[in-house]
Amino acid sequence: MSRNNIHVQSIKATHKAEILLVGNELLCGKIKDANAHWLGKQLGSFGVSVTRVTIIRDDVQEIATVIKEIVARHPDYVISSGGLGPTFDDVTMQGMADGFGKKLVLDQNAIEWLKDRYETQVRAGVFKRQDGWLNESRKKMACIPEGSTALHNSAGAAPGVLIETGTTRFFVLPGVPRELQAIFSEHVAPILQRENPGVRFHEFGFRLDGVGESAMAEKINALMKEVDERVWIKSHAKHDGKTYYVEMHISGYGDATFRKVVEEVTGRVRRILVDLGGRITDIVEQEK
Amino acid sequence: MSRNNIHVQSIKATHKAEILLVGNELLCGKIKDANAHWLGKQLGSFGVSVTRVTIIRDDVQEIATVIKEIVARHPDYVISSGGLGPTFDDVTMQGMADGFGKKLVLDQNAIEWLKDRYETQVRAGVFKRQDGWLNESRKKMACIPEGSTALHNSAGAAPGVLIETGTTRFFVLPGVPRELQAIFSEHVAPILQRENPGVRFHEFGFRLDGVGESAMAEKINALMKEVDERVWIKSHAKHDGKTYYVEMHISGYGDATFRKVVEEVTGRVRRILVDLGGRITDIVEQEK
Repeated sequence: MSRNNIHVQSIKATHKAEILLVGNELLCGKIKDANAHWLGKQLGSFGVSVTRVTIIRDDVQEIATVIKEIVARHPDYVISSGGLGPTFDDVTMQGMADGFGKKLVLDQNAIEWLKDRYETQVRAGVFKRQDGWLNESRKKMACIPEGSTALHNSAGAAPGVLIETGTTRFFVLPGVPRELQAIFSEHVAPILQRENPGVRFHEFGFRLDGVGESAMAEKINALMKEVDERVWIKSHAKHDGKTYYVEMHISGYGDATFRKVVEEVTGRVRRILVDLGGRITDIVEQEK
Repeated sequence: MSRNNIHVQSIKATHKAEILLVGNELLCGKIKDANAHWLGKQLGSFGVSVTRVTIIRDDVQEIATVIKEIVARHPDYVISSGGLGPTFDDVTMQGMADGFGKKLVLDQNAIEWLKDRYETQVRAGVFKRQDGWLNESRKKMACIPEGSTALHNSAGAAPGVLIETGTTRFFVLPGVPRELQAIFSEHVAPILQRENPGVRFHEFGFRLDGVGESAMAEKINALMKEVDERVWIKSHAKHDGKTYYVEMHISGYGDATFRKVVEEVTGRVRRILVDLGGRITDIVEQEK
């Protein structure tokens, strides 16, 4: 299947990664996976070479077996996707715990994040305040393998997890592409950058009034599908003591020439927001 | 990643399958795989459950290793895709041979098919007749693991292969989706049907004058992307002693209700061909 692997050969791969996708619907052809492709591109931009992708069912025993197989191959990084939700067939955390020989434990950070999310949703009128907000569904999402680190999910409920074993780092991410991309960009990419020098973080940001996050969602999501997949567009609702506003960040990891790409996308985001009636009131620019 | 696996549970899976994709570009995010999704759907329609998909590089040693891992899991079927072309980085056959502990041997059927294809291309003026038509590239594509069976590729050069080991049947197919789909539909599907009763073959066919295969290719390919993925649309250039004509077959495997789907697609194919100036001169209808 490879008539042309110049791209692969031109990357000096120092670190190796594997990708693990968990989900029955991926195997029976019900949905087309988008995550392996996106992750492959991201990892490649850090000079990390993907050596294997494995797709398996939502099955505790199967997940545990594959985890052991992957650990035995000693990749530097593993990114898994899927099976972190609240329903009965989301069993990835249990499979991971079994595979690593760890217990599942309630994580205090994860509980805090779910509590914050709950409070925000109550305030927004999504549902009414109830006793016992930490129901079985939320408790399930806050349980992670003992000794691992929960990763905040800015785009959804289920946190990700970082598990370190030997020289391998396992990043356990949700299957919903937007959530996977949020956790990858905010938690995985900075680690990859630190451990794979030569790639820089490029970011443009500004403050926006007059357009809310939900009003821009459709157009910004469409734009993200069009532009270079390494570019990450993110909005934060903020409050400065007087009024609500939105802070926008457009960022990505790449070499020096990649800065231009991020800048161009920033221009497109600004035009979209101005067309929607937004006022761009402040520029925050940073480069790490 | 699975909020809803009703579809999976409703299939009474008697046989299990694995899918193996070979290709550097799939791992680095250069191209998005389409074959695993298509194959998953096809296998599902025969009640065959896909238990694992593995994607690896074009690397002989890696392919051989994964073959041994798959054999040890005893799936009923394995479909591999990719790495059968003529170039140096197409190494799937060598990897398969090493994995199964067999030699690669020149296959007489494969040589005949490549010769036929060469003659057709010379007649069509694609290139001039030369001595030594069986060059290294063609010889490479005609080499298959000893004891395996070559499968004719009606949509391209590189034949597929069937390797039987224990209770597992390995189907080694090309990565180009159109070629993979041709060999699957013509050689794999009939075997799956025989071994997984309850699914029937539905086919509609007709003779067409006034439109050649290349003239219809774009519209028919676009239609195939739109309709139910189990439906296979195929054209054959034929000669009846006096003139050239095209025979069209629209077919697919499914239960009795699926016949209606194939029939509807046939109607759409007919309308496209009539719009292109075609005359439908004969109806051949069959059902196996």
